[in-house]
Amino acid sequence: MERLKVEVCYSPALFPYYVNREATVVVTDILRASSAIVTAFMNGVERIIPVGTLKEAKAFKEKGFMVAAERDGIVRDFADFGNSPYNFTPERVRGKQIVYSTTNGTHAIQLASSGKQVLIGAYLNLSALARHVRKEKRDLLVLCAGWRNKYNLEDTLFAGALAELVLEDKRFHTICDATIGAMDLYAVAKQHMMGYIEKVAQRHRLKKNRLDDVIGYCHETDLTEIIPVLEGDYLVAL
Amino acid sequence: MERLKVEVCYSPALFPYYVNREATVVVTDILRASSAIVTAFMNGVERIIPVGTLKEAKAFKEKGFMVAAERDGIVRDFADFGNSPYNFTPERVRGKQIVYSTTNGTHAIQLASSGKQVLIGAYLNLSALARHVRKEKRDLLVLCAGWRNKYNLEDTLFAGALAELVLEDKRFHTICDATIGAMDLYAVAKQHMMGYIEKVAQRHRLKKNRLDDVIGYCHETDLTEIIPVLEGDYLVAL
Repeated sequence: MERLKVEVCYSPALFPYYVNREATVVVTDILRASSAIVTAFMNGVERIIPVGTLKEAKAFKEKGFMVAAERDGIVRDFADFGNSPYNFTPERVRGKQIVYSTTNGTHAIQLASSGKQVLIGAYLNLSALARHVRKEKRDLLVLCAGWRNKYNLEDTLFAGALAELVLEDKRFHTICDATIGAMDLYAVAKQHMMGYIEKVAQRHRLKKNRLDDVIGYCHETDLTEIIPVLEGDYLVAL
Repeated sequence: MERLKVEVCYSPALFPYYVNREATVVVTDILRASSAIVTAFMNGVERIIPVGTLKEAKAFKEKGFMVAAERDGIVRDFADFGNSPYNFTPERVRGKQIVYSTTNGTHAIQLASSGKQVLIGAYLNLSALARHVRKEKRDLLVLCAGWRNKYNLEDTLFAGALAELVLEDKRFHTICDATIGAMDLYAVAKQHMMGYIEKVAQRHRLKKNRLDDVIGYCHETDLTEIIPVLEGDYLVAL
């Protein structure tokens, strides 16, 4: 029996070397886009429209859409809010469509659409995600949004956590060094996650902009069963 | 006082995001190109001419040069030998010029030449390298050759080992997640390096082609003080 592959890609800039049209692609941007998107669906958003450029986001705003848009953690002036998960409250998002553009996350989602199915992954929906991937019986490719195409630790650790859960199912295997590295780092970090996260660069960027209040929340596990999935140009709940 | 930066780049395809014209760039391709290059200098080679394409390598061969050239571990028919460190014996290389082209390593060397100084790093010259980097008082950027632009573990571990030694000098610091990840993986792996290396993909590629006899040797530490350095288009001993 051909076993199913698990691979991790550490940067959108490396994605061309990992493209797998048969795979379930899980896009993650733990601090904070993918955690915010999962939260929005937990709170009843109907649909999220990821857009790459601020120009597109602005055009949607002018058409009357609610827009979440930021660059480098700073909310853009034309936008309704940025990408803290705390912005996506039930009062604001329930039953709504939201246009969403961030520094790293939305570009990664667009790249990932070369796969068979694109899901949004965060610790918030970790176990549900792993169950779904195992049930679908397709290869798993985790795409880390990274930071401006550089490697980042927080996305790597999440990739390790997800790979570990999926690989418990022996129909899956990995010969991908990035997957092994991610799992080994997660094994180190999970012993004291909040202590480990002190080391990551994004934690300091967020702190500088007083946006670090969400770090604990973004590492809470299994608050929901909801999995955002890309359908055409939109994210909806699976 | 401005502190000196340590950064690690996991793939030639990510190099554009890490370019630092003021840095000492250490290129590594542990299994096997950088270990072979250091060995060649240990055994008295005068000069190594890294070339990117097999076409260039072949043209040099036709001009009478000794040529080491392989792709995916397989020696090319026109070449004198491939890139096992064991090929670069004193009898063959002492006082000679060798043209060298490999799957991942030589491309990385050419990219790295945007830096202030380009050095070739392996476990074989690890401590000498760290001392030199500290003495030069420039930023350190480690460029991992990777595997066809994908991340690999063996180069990452070496980057972690070198970063750890350099960062003992408090004039250096890092805010680079890739450097932190490499050091944390090295801390796990070094407890039983040969056991850890069983996990890496390249170890299995080499084994399949019966080229895995060099793995132990490529992880021996501090056999030499020699540091290969790029001068114009050539590698010479520093």
